[in-house]
Amino acid sequence: MEPYELEKTVEAVLGRIFVPLEASGRHVHVTADQAKQLFGHGLTPQRELSQPGQYLAKERLTVAGPKGKFEDVAVLGPERKEAQVEISLTDGRMLGIQPPIRLSGDVKNSPGCTLIGPGGAVELKQGVICAQRHIHLTPEDGRRFAVADKQRVKLQTFTGRPAIFEDVVVRTNADFAAAVHLDYDEANACGFRKGDFGRIIP
Amino acid sequence: MEPYELEKTVEAVLGRIFVPLEASGRHVHVTADQAKQLFGHGLTPQRELSQPGQYLAKERLTVAGPKGKFEDVAVLGPERKEAQVEISLTDGRMLGIQPPIRLSGDVKNSPGCTLIGPGGAVELKQGVICAQRHIHLTPEDGRRFAVADKQRVKLQTFTGRPAIFEDVVVRTNADFAAAVHLDYDEANACGFRKGDFGRIIP
Repeated sequence: MEPYELEKTVEAVLGRIFVPLEASGRHVHVTADQAKQLFGHGLTPQRELSQPGQYLAKERLTVAGPKGKFEDVAVLGPERKEAQVEISLTDGRMLGIQPPIRLSGDVKNSPGCTLIGPGGAVELKQGVICAQRHIHLTPEDGRRFAVADKQRVKLQTFTGRPAIFEDVVVRTNADFAAAVHLDYDEANACGFRKGDFGRIIP
Repeated sequence: MEPYELEKTVEAVLGRIFVPLEASGRHVHVTADQAKQLFGHGLTPQRELSQPGQYLAKERLTVAGPKGKFEDVAVLGPERKEAQVEISLTDGRMLGIQPPIRLSGDVKNSPGCTLIGPGGAVELKQGVICAQRHIHLTPEDGRRFAVADKQRVKLQTFTGRPAIFEDVVVRTNADFAAAVHLDYDEANACGFRKGDFGRIIP
């Protein structure tokens, strides 16, 4: 095989056994209306993310809580129907906010915070969560790993400080690319480095 | 049994099966000479810690790195033969220091930092580490759990975000009290709350 073919083959084999790990830093999702208030215009894509259609916006925000604030926080697009601020529990201590552990989109009765952009500020009544660790898979990946949408599995990490995370939620969608999403507490707890893999234990 | 006896019995039974979890925040150990330079005098005990003889000092320090600093950092006594600064990988990002994962006391060729106290500053050439997760046990506990000093075991946490940490080092000493020491990345990654327990998997 040519070197290029070999590399592709290796990647394909690894992808049948392991799932790439990704660490998600703190970030914000806003509505189209909020983007206007915060920036004076809609979000501008800067870089595509691993999940198709999702992007890192050029715009950045300050996230403020009762005890502290983070400046220059990433904003992810496209705009959503409801704002969501995803932080780690460590971030929560710094802000003075105790986020519940939730899946993305589930912000009901979560704490609020203040978003500050160059064009103005927005007071969120709710929306601050700590993302429940999860695995994005296509339905085909799910069949291959013998796991179903919403199933909770264990995930063994092949990382510097190896760990097995329990209660990792599988999310399948034809638009997804296979990836485990950890927050930075989890990423640091397992010594994650870019390029590391994990193994699903159903 | 009287309520008090029942409680003691329950604690004793739990202690035969589980080990209490403890989260260690960032902290500093200094030498007697450094204490004089930083505070003008030796360390003053404020509160005993779970490990016999160890105490939280009244004195606090600023720890500074190339990218940031932490003020009001805990100092643990008694004074040691060599300084040691224990931080999490998250703390390391904030300071601009990449600490190696090491057992306490193993600071050779680790990065340095600046310590600043009310009496002066001390430049450490080495000493900044991220504490390898570990379990303090008496030799008797060790026999009971069928693990030996320096053995690496798995630890299952019964916590809000359950996890199994691999590569947890057992340390046995007649002066120890049974306790698992996690840093805050690990504590937050497993959703630790005060009073939680873990189970050793040899």
